[in-house]
Amino acid sequence: MKKILKVNMRTGAILEEECPGKYEYFGGRSFIANYLLSEMNPASNALGRENRFIISCGLLADTRLTTAGRFSVGGKSPLTGGVKECNVGGDAGKKLARLGYKAVILEDLPEKREPKVLIIRQGDCRLEIIPNLLNKEVSETSRILREKYGKGIGIICIGPAGELGMAAAVVATFNQEGTQLRVAARGGLGAVMGSKGIKAVVVDDAEAVPEKAYDPEALSLASKEVAKILLEDPKTDNRHNYGTAGVMALCNSLGILPTRNFSQGQFEKADSLSGEFLAQVVDQRGGEGKRGLPCIKGCVIQCSNVFADPEGRAVVGSLQYETLALLGSNCGIGSLDEIARLNNLCNQVGVDTIETGAALGVAMESGLLSFGDAKGAEEIIRQIGRGDIFGRVIGNGAVVTGQVLNNYRVPAIHGQAIPAYDPRSLKGIGVTYVTSPMGADHTAGNTLETVKNLPPRGREKQVETSYRLQIRAALLDSLGVCLFIRPAFVKNPELMPRLLNARYGWKLTYPEVQRMGIACLEAEKRFNSLSGRDETHCDVPEFMRFEPLPPHNTVFDITREEMYEVWNSEIEENIF
Amino acid sequence: MKKILKVNMRTGAILEEECPGKYEYFGGRSFIANYLLSEMNPASNALGRENRFIISCGLLADTRLTTAGRFSVGGKSPLTGGVKECNVGGDAGKKLARLGYKAVILEDLPEKREPKVLIIRQGDCRLEIIPNLLNKEVSETSRILREKYGKGIGIICIGPAGELGMAAAVVATFNQEGTQLRVAARGGLGAVMGSKGIKAVVVDDAEAVPEKAYDPEALSLASKEVAKILLEDPKTDNRHNYGTAGVMALCNSLGILPTRNFSQGQFEKADSLSGEFLAQVVDQRGGEGKRGLPCIKGCVIQCSNVFADPEGRAVVGSLQYETLALLGSNCGIGSLDEIARLNNLCNQVGVDTIETGAALGVAMESGLLSFGDAKGAEEIIRQIGRGDIFGRVIGNGAVVTGQVLNNYRVPAIHGQAIPAYDPRSLKGIGVTYVTSPMGADHTAGNTLETVKNLPPRGREKQVETSYRLQIRAALLDSLGVCLFIRPAFVKNPELMPRLLNARYGWKLTYPEVQRMGIACLEAEKRFNSLSGRDETHCDVPEFMRFEPLPPHNTVFDITREEMYEVWNSEIEENIF
Repeated sequence: MKKILKVNMRTGAILEEECPGKYEYFGGRSFIANYLLSEMNPASNALGRENRFIISCGLLADTRLTTAGRFSVGGKSPLTGGVKECNVGGDAGKKLARLGYKAVILEDLPEKREPKVLIIRQGDCRLEIIPNLLNKEVSETSRILREKYGKGIGIICIGPAGELGMAAAVVATFNQEGTQLRVAARGGLGAVMGSKGIKAVVVDDAEAVPEKAYDPEALSLASKEVAKILLEDPKTDNRHNYGTAGVMALCNSLGILPTRNFSQGQFEKADSLSGEFLAQVVDQRGGEGKRGLPCIKGCVIQCSNVFADPEGRAVVGSLQYETLALLGSNCGIGSLDEIARLNNLCNQVGVDTIETGAALGVAMESGLLSFGDAKGAEEIIRQIGRGDIFGRVIGNGAVVTGQVLNNYRVPAIHGQAIPAYDPRSLKGIGVTYVTSPMGADHTAGNTLETVKNLPPRGREKQVETSYRLQIRAALLDSLGVCLFIRPAFVKNPELMPRLLNARYGWKLTYPEVQRMGIACLEAEKRFNSLSGRDETHCDVPEFMRFEPLPPHNTVFDITREEMYEVWNSEIEENIF
Repeated sequence: MKKILKVNMRTGAILEEECPGKYEYFGGRSFIANYLLSEMNPASNALGRENRFIISCGLLADTRLTTAGRFSVGGKSPLTGGVKECNVGGDAGKKLARLGYKAVILEDLPEKREPKVLIIRQGDCRLEIIPNLLNKEVSETSRILREKYGKGIGIICIGPAGELGMAAAVVATFNQEGTQLRVAARGGLGAVMGSKGIKAVVVDDAEAVPEKAYDPEALSLASKEVAKILLEDPKTDNRHNYGTAGVMALCNSLGILPTRNFSQGQFEKADSLSGEFLAQVVDQRGGEGKRGLPCIKGCVIQCSNVFADPEGRAVVGSLQYETLALLGSNCGIGSLDEIARLNNLCNQVGVDTIETGAALGVAMESGLLSFGDAKGAEEIIRQIGRGDIFGRVIGNGAVVTGQVLNNYRVPAIHGQAIPAYDPRSLKGIGVTYVTSPMGADHTAGNTLETVKNLPPRGREKQVETSYRLQIRAALLDSLGVCLFIRPAFVKNPELMPRLLNARYGWKLTYPEVQRMGIACLEAEKRFNSLSGRDETHCDVPEFMRFEPLPPHNTVFDITREEMYEVWNSEIEENIF
């Protein structure tokens, strides 16, 4: 992956160039951070001319390593105002990597908005205008594009919400068979893509001539070791069977499940949203419903599902924990069928289920509809797709919704909605939400995995733990692998330099690899600081410091001063 | 003015205490900055429990000095996220000063929202609930309160927009006769007042026992000198005759008049909005229409007007330049009658005409209504008052409107709409907009007065000039006098220490007084920095750096680095 593709959306100029040497060791998240820091004024407008929309492959994206091939999208976020990276499975990333692109970068703004598609083939990249894609839903966009460019293409696209510049807009993509619609959800990067006037990127790798690894044998060996460890890990089994929803029961028992706009930490209908119950329903219904699916070719974990209605027709895939919590318990909705429909609607109009669920929770608490009103929520999501005014408010996320509806109980940090772990009873993730350059993001350093060893409501070690997990996340997000690969590197961290060295012929040691994660965070923090944000003074939402969270009646009690010691934490020899 | 009145809106406790010694030299703006910096966490939510709503009298508010008696309102701003002070004429400030209050401070949030009124009398302060004030317009609120508490009361109140927490909400007050409705407009402080659950503060000074000045004779002598200089100054005559609209022709000729969402600097109908034309119309129509009125008792400038309709019925008072520009040329509206009606509607629902005009300009450019559509604009302002969703969007200001409508050409800095001087052709005020702790505010250091000596489109000396004027503004805003008093202090700066020393028995020198202005700015900058904003990286809106402004086709070309040298500027011996 030695090439960079730059497309100027004002002039239409397409420039393919060799990736400058200074970016050699960067991929995915670390490429995005360093490229933006070096090339744009961080203080400029997220939907303005200076911002870039970047698609970048992780460093191991073109290998057969399990879970590898996720791609990152990035830019300055219209939600957080800082740098944002968001990565996703599906098959488009692997295709882009096979074509040799480290990154595709959209620059400037078009003079005129019309639905453009960027087609990337071996030796042939161009822009096409496809007028009838205007405001099309995501699956319909996919259908039109596959009809025109062939079934086997990779698609990266936005829905109407992205075209309308909404700050909750996602970037959507698909698995190989097109049966799962996956989204790079957080930070409103769909709006950045939309601002560039690009409705979709089509990746056709039919004639790709992939680069060769430096040492294919060593790469294959290390990859097999990773797969073996994962297959032996009990967490893999749980994930395979129950998907991310496997943590529902745990989160409910810990009292951290966002319920009715973060006013409770347990939901009386949590059982009907659990991973175990979800699996049972999927199995009973049969038909198009399935579980234990890969989202990306070659993944051994296979934690995805397709959820079908009682008649066995697919509704949405994959139905996941964050969505079950934010569109479910947080909205007082306890039915898998209702949540699946809401999830699909969000996917089709192209908005983040976390941000949308949080915004709906605020709207419900403000009295615009009742908690539990799934029909009302459906109608509002349709309004997002139509660009109705209230739809645009919700589609711009929880903070704008709270401001417009005069409700200051907004669960958001750095402008971004808090995901499905209330920090009042899981303190460590609160540290991550506040201090991560990504804003409130559960993939940026999630301390849920530490609750066995570290009391989640205690104050001890939460700061250091957050730092350790933040470095980890930054590193994995730069490799193009899934966070669920962690058990392999926990067991044998040396696998990381082995993989990278075999792929590129580098001579990295494990401490040097670890340093790559730290450097990524540092570049991101620098960008955010230059964007005009003094991160040391941000905090959890005020109400989380005042308002006790049932059932444990906890408030968030780690001080800002304590949290910002995160960057002075001692780094362990092995952060995995 | 040695007393402070603190009202806890959660408990209902009212505490009157002597003002702590550390605030002795502070009043109005400087009191607000220093009190908030010392008492609250600047990073907390503007509409949350920690923020305060402060009404503070300037240091000379209880004297007979011309223009003195303006009061400041302040708190953390829901628009800028920083500290905000906003001052206004009318008679309530003088009454509060006569009762001996340096400040009235509303704390915490009520458990239940119901329209409360704070009544302040000599030796008797209390809260009353008046249910039928709920969502009442401003003039109707005044009528109900005067009926209940007597004609001679001072009133400080909010309209429905403040009750609904809108970030463009103002704090309204009246002149002695109730014929002019004046507003403390910028920064959304009406929403902060609304969040405290206070609909109005009633000030009844009938039994007031005013404090005596230290040296009444010296105070009277210095005050007379000020009045004499002002009466001899040619600017006073112009202001008396034409009001603030007297600068319309100048601003249009300089090409800085915001026109059609800041896309042009000249308006083809500027003549029909000029001060001279306004005076002619007022004179011709007669009836309740008048000009050359004081907004505050004892003012010798008397720049206010009451604008009447063709039948001679009062529509609004006072119709001013900022409103003529933002609701007028910026919305493509060139009729005094139409603008006066819009102005009155904004006053009644309780929103800032600058912020609302800027938001309407963005909405017009986005195609929601046409430029020039005054009827459409009226309907939208009515929607603000009703709390309809689109009304709430507009009522939350230009930035939220731009975000919801996906228009990045938003004329705002630090979240607040740019007032009626386009910085591309008046560079100095651009430096003020960006660097002032107040956000884009024309009263924070307006370089319009320097255009005779300093080419407004040149880059030279704009930064130093902005600093000088920012210090001046901070100082005058702390004294409780009008910015239009400047000519007196320009001619004889020694008058300032003479006035303060005569009032309080201090022994200040002029350099020490000047230092009070600098110290106020420093406290404000410190608050903003602690609120989580790194001011050194903020900038004018991106489009003002790219898009040339007709007719001079200028862009804003003072760099951020140059602007932030403002705080390192050499301070002249006399900044006046």
